[in-house]
Amino acid sequence: MKLYDFKMAPNARRVRIFTAEKGIELETVTVDLAAREQMGDDFKAVNARMAVPTLELDDGTIITESVAICRYLDEIQPEPVLFGEGAKGKAIVEMWHRRCELEGQVACGDAVRNSIEFFKGRAVTGPTNFEQIPALAERGKQRIGWFFEMLDERLGDSPYIAGVDYSIADICALVAIDFAKAAKVRMSEDAVNLQRWYADVSARPSATA
Amino acid sequence: MKLYDFKMAPNARRVRIFTAEKGIELETVTVDLAAREQMGDDFKAVNARMAVPTLELDDGTIITESVAICRYLDEIQPEPVLFGEGAKGKAIVEMWHRRCELEGQVACGDAVRNSIEFFKGRAVTGPTNFEQIPALAERGKQRIGWFFEMLDERLGDSPYIAGVDYSIADICALVAIDFAKAAKVRMSEDAVNLQRWYADVSARPSATA
Repeated sequence: MKLYDFKMAPNARRVRIFTAEKGIELETVTVDLAAREQMGDDFKAVNARMAVPTLELDDGTIITESVAICRYLDEIQPEPVLFGEGAKGKAIVEMWHRRCELEGQVACGDAVRNSIEFFKGRAVTGPTNFEQIPALAERGKQRIGWFFEMLDERLGDSPYIAGVDYSIADICALVAIDFAKAAKVRMSEDAVNLQRWYADVSARPSATA
Repeated sequence: MKLYDFKMAPNARRVRIFTAEKGIELETVTVDLAAREQMGDDFKAVNARMAVPTLELDDGTIITESVAICRYLDEIQPEPVLFGEGAKGKAIVEMWHRRCELEGQVACGDAVRNSIEFFKGRAVTGPTNFEQIPALAERGKQRIGWFFEMLDERLGDSPYIAGVDYSIADICALVAIDFAKAAKVRMSEDAVNLQRWYADVSARPSATA
């Protein structure tokens, strides 16, 4: 199998960190989003949604959506556990992962894609061009602030976001926080629990993946 | 365990349909969102995010996020399979489910919450009040149109969204389509594959849950 990838794409980074944590080595093919290579005919034939990451299985099956790719990799390589264990453990990871996605990553996407020059006319991933909405960028920035406060509070009670173990929720939050820097939104120095966690997860070898 | 629920809330409906398909009977507690009961102190003590659905386990654990609740129910009652089978099957369901969420449900949420009178000043779920952004409602409506086209094409090749079997992706899409009616966005009569599928999934007993 091979992964269509781009170093700077946050969703691709989620898969790369997940893969590194699992100790899986994947063949990768770079799709240069900076040069809009995902909109060319060659890549459109692979993924008509024109987005990375995209996983191509050996039988030709195409899996898009970063979490679907992680789910596949988790099934073929269950250790270490990143989606939780047992009914309650899996539900708690899913809950925190989704909070990180919906309250964090979506807010970061709103802030970045609706404000920076690079995404002018490309405010939404996919085949359709959408203009930026400045009010949505502002709403996104405000929501990121609330997300950081929520995480800081949670991480006062828990070493990792979903509990005592590192999980896919930590991966999502780390990627969102780093992506938010593109919109000049950063964690407060006073958010000591969040800062402690950020230093911890950023120091894992997978964070450079 | 018990489910905090509200009949008209689309995310609560996702859980109710999932539960009905599984044949699980849950004790439910109605939280009247029309009366803003989720913002009262009683419910805030259950879920500080002030959102339904919320599942309370017998040990007092609170699970929020509709898909996390479905994941828990799936673990305690694996049949019928709604999240796919095998590594590839699970990844394909996750991929289509996420496409239905990100391209469909999010677009519907953008359209409805940023346009109708009921959500004035409450454009985002959760504890913080946000004003509506009319341009986002328009973007949402346009994206729903693309979502319907995408589904119509997909359903020309496949009886259900993720393949030959009904899955959580169908639940998500059905709920999104019905929710979009609040913003007066409806499927085209010409979308014959989508209409065939919609009639099919709407006729299942679970659809009235």
